[in-house]
Amino acid sequence: MTNQLQDLIKEYNGLTKRRKQFLEVISLMYWDLQTKAPRGATDERSETIGTMYTEVFKELISDKSEALLNRLLEKENFDQLTKVLQLSVTNDKKELDRYKKIPPERYGAYKALTAKAQTIWAEAKEKNDFLLFQPYLEEIVAFQQEFIELRGYNGHKYNTLLDDYEPGMTTETLDAIFAYIKEKTISLLRKIETSAHEPKVDILHKSYDAKRQEELSLRMLRDMGYDFDRGRLDISAHPFTIKINTGDVRITTRYEEQLLSSALFSSIHEGGHGLYEQNIDPALRETSLSEAASTGVHESQSRYWENILGRSQAFWKYFGPIVREIFPENLQGASNEALYYAVNKIQPSFIRVEADEITYNLHIILRYELEKDLINGVITVADLPRLWNEKMETYLGIKPDQDSQGVLQDVHWSDGMFGYFPTYSLGNIYAAQFTKKLREGIPDYEELIEKGNFKPILDWLKENIHRHGAMMQPEALLEKVTGEGINPQYFIEYIEEKYADIYQLAFDQAEDFT
Amino acid sequence: MTNQLQDLIKEYNGLTKRRKQFLEVISLMYWDLQTKAPRGATDERSETIGTMYTEVFKELISDKSEALLNRLLEKENFDQLTKVLQLSVTNDKKELDRYKKIPPERYGAYKALTAKAQTIWAEAKEKNDFLLFQPYLEEIVAFQQEFIELRGYNGHKYNTLLDDYEPGMTTETLDAIFAYIKEKTISLLRKIETSAHEPKVDILHKSYDAKRQEELSLRMLRDMGYDFDRGRLDISAHPFTIKINTGDVRITTRYEEQLLSSALFSSIHEGGHGLYEQNIDPALRETSLSEAASTGVHESQSRYWENILGRSQAFWKYFGPIVREIFPENLQGASNEALYYAVNKIQPSFIRVEADEITYNLHIILRYELEKDLINGVITVADLPRLWNEKMETYLGIKPDQDSQGVLQDVHWSDGMFGYFPTYSLGNIYAAQFTKKLREGIPDYEELIEKGNFKPILDWLKENIHRHGAMMQPEALLEKVTGEGINPQYFIEYIEEKYADIYQLAFDQAEDFT
Repeated sequence: MTNQLQDLIKEYNGLTKRRKQFLEVISLMYWDLQTKAPRGATDERSETIGTMYTEVFKELISDKSEALLNRLLEKENFDQLTKVLQLSVTNDKKELDRYKKIPPERYGAYKALTAKAQTIWAEAKEKNDFLLFQPYLEEIVAFQQEFIELRGYNGHKYNTLLDDYEPGMTTETLDAIFAYIKEKTISLLRKIETSAHEPKVDILHKSYDAKRQEELSLRMLRDMGYDFDRGRLDISAHPFTIKINTGDVRITTRYEEQLLSSALFSSIHEGGHGLYEQNIDPALRETSLSEAASTGVHESQSRYWENILGRSQAFWKYFGPIVREIFPENLQGASNEALYYAVNKIQPSFIRVEADEITYNLHIILRYELEKDLINGVITVADLPRLWNEKMETYLGIKPDQDSQGVLQDVHWSDGMFGYFPTYSLGNIYAAQFTKKLREGIPDYEELIEKGNFKPILDWLKENIHRHGAMMQPEALLEKVTGEGINPQYFIEYIEEKYADIYQLAFDQAEDFT
Repeated sequence: MTNQLQDLIKEYNGLTKRRKQFLEVISLMYWDLQTKAPRGATDERSETIGTMYTEVFKELISDKSEALLNRLLEKENFDQLTKVLQLSVTNDKKELDRYKKIPPERYGAYKALTAKAQTIWAEAKEKNDFLLFQPYLEEIVAFQQEFIELRGYNGHKYNTLLDDYEPGMTTETLDAIFAYIKEKTISLLRKIETSAHEPKVDILHKSYDAKRQEELSLRMLRDMGYDFDRGRLDISAHPFTIKINTGDVRITTRYEEQLLSSALFSSIHEGGHGLYEQNIDPALRETSLSEAASTGVHESQSRYWENILGRSQAFWKYFGPIVREIFPENLQGASNEALYYAVNKIQPSFIRVEADEITYNLHIILRYELEKDLINGVITVADLPRLWNEKMETYLGIKPDQDSQGVLQDVHWSDGMFGYFPTYSLGNIYAAQFTKKLREGIPDYEELIEKGNFKPILDWLKENIHRHGAMMQPEALLEKVTGEGINPQYFIEYIEEKYADIYQLAFDQAEDFT
């Protein structure tokens, strides 16, 4: 390797590191605003976040960066790079091309807006006052539309946003998958509604002290293998996971004293995200590949731990005694089986993050449809509360009477995260596909879970998914691990089998997804 | 005003704001490392702090900044600026001249070192292992010496460091003041040692639940007027106050379950700092004047609330019932007077932050002498533990048998804060001078305190001290408020009068300080 190429690589590593440092700063400011910051911090902090984003963005699309990337992409240089560097450089070039058309000042203004909008959203939600949030959301949507025009799009405009979170995913593919899921889900819901068997959930709705719920969350996170020397658990209005740096991946939850399962499953869910981030190969640290493969793959990890493991019969054989020990007054008479049934009750409800495994995807499909129409300008922000409630009634048969229970429930839009919601359902689909292989790879899978020995499972996930970071796109990763592309049939089979047992339903074999 | 001058001012305001935003980022990262961050965060975070400091520093001393300041300092421009802008520009030019000789990379490396050194210090203190910390401290001292040579100095080298915290203060002035304080203090200590009266402190040394101690701290901070909408209270190894932005001034404390007074007085102390920062005139926000006048003046505010108010007989008439209500089991039989005596026991001890009002300054004089010798190269870092213990024995008559109780007790050196310690004693001296005027200005001073109505006191401090920020240097502020310059006699009179009563001593009138 020539000295000149070595210098180019050194310069590239320096720029990458610097960008990561600014992102570290931004992540910490964001975490702080959501968990610890006093109200008075918001105004200046939002502007500061905007400034730091402008900084990252300016450097990302600078002529200097572009020239450097182009030099590294020259065949005689590129061929001498390590595989990791090749991928990192290619990724960065894609990112640069994607953003080069947005003026840095517009991007900074947008980021300052979303930082502010998040605290306004929290206030609007608390006060059940959509009008407070509306002007901010209108500005955010206008920014998104402006950016899509600048960035360009293939087919549907919304594809540009989808690709930000799920590289390679399109509206066309999603429409087909969601149609299949919708039909199967509604048909399953019909059967469940007419079942004579229904899990009793009253044991979950007693008074559960928040401090002891925290103990329970911490216990489970430790059992999962979440590393508290490189992370922490806090409280926020909406639970989230954030990588601040590679040695500092934090998660949050929220405690509802009247519902035992809320914080527990939020914590397990975020713990699943946290494990992914904590176990990306440290060798990728200096590159742009020390990220998840996609938001959907990220979600497959949280959903696996939360639902497929955390809501399984085997798990409650292990965890039942622990929960009873922490809440003896409330749960003395509750069997493992009763707990397992209780956390698997199917019940159309208003809040997405508390939805069951079956209705959950209907919440997502609702948001997906609204987002597509908003971005296309078919509907306006002012229409959202009404349309939200109408769709809730059509898909789930229930209608919220407060916006805080409806259109204001999620933080995402206040952060400009359009195109993100579909990845939750993709996570469910991927998780079911991965689990099929995971169970083949670990013959005593159920026995391990019954003993609370999750290490072989975590090891499998690390080896097959976590460590690769963003070395592969979702489709390639899926192919490598499962031998096929995205296929929602495994998810449908999983819920049909599980709930046929719980609700004692009769089923034909699931039809193939085509 | 010409358009051209308006543009210059706009550019200047933009640069000032940007610098403040980077300092906000750094402050938040620092706060997080000291209070919340997991261990794994440290390495990358330290480097990131270094990068952000380099950024601030590069811009501070950039040719662009210098040219801009020089333009604004041109007579025909300067004369048209507001008084505030004139002072801000003058301040910045002084700062620029001060740092221009340090290469930004060296400054960044130094800041990365101190960020790391602080966590190493915490570990060394916990493990009582000075050798762990020694190499870091050696590097820090070498950096300081290098920087002083680059920056230049008048008279004693240490003056350059003193001036960083206390503009205008010199070793020559301090030597005289400290000689006076030392003589008076030791003479007072002798009298106290031979007194037949000694406050009983056993009521403070029962088991005091940390959670309820927190309640007590919060109660007092609210009473003082500390604004929790623009601040918060957390736990850290060493209590501190930090302005993150003008709407976000945080304080920390630490709870010792075996000593009621420890956290309470730490909280009041930091609350005093917090009040200063929270009440600087918002009109100064955009300038470099929204800072305290000096570290010594800052300390005068914390010391006033902690000692002059918090350890007064009037205060305990108000606070006694509150403490008894929160800790009824421990304090049922303790009178207000017993509590007042207990928190005013004079007792030579190892830990500065828990020292009484009389011995406290001896702790400072010890550090001042070691720092001067270290900076001069008269002694080395390796000598510190031995010299520390020898001086403790000479001045206070006691010798720590663990470095964690001695040379490792303070965070300051790990953060490179040489020249800072003397400002603690300056704070005591200033506080006594300000109090004289404060009492003249508020005739029912004692009655207000007995009722817990601190608002008129806070209003006086806001009006006379807080709101001015860095508009005046310490000497000028002192002259304006009290009509004279620094004079340690008021402090000596204050402690002689107070402790003559508590220990029933006989005194002549304090001699004048000349």
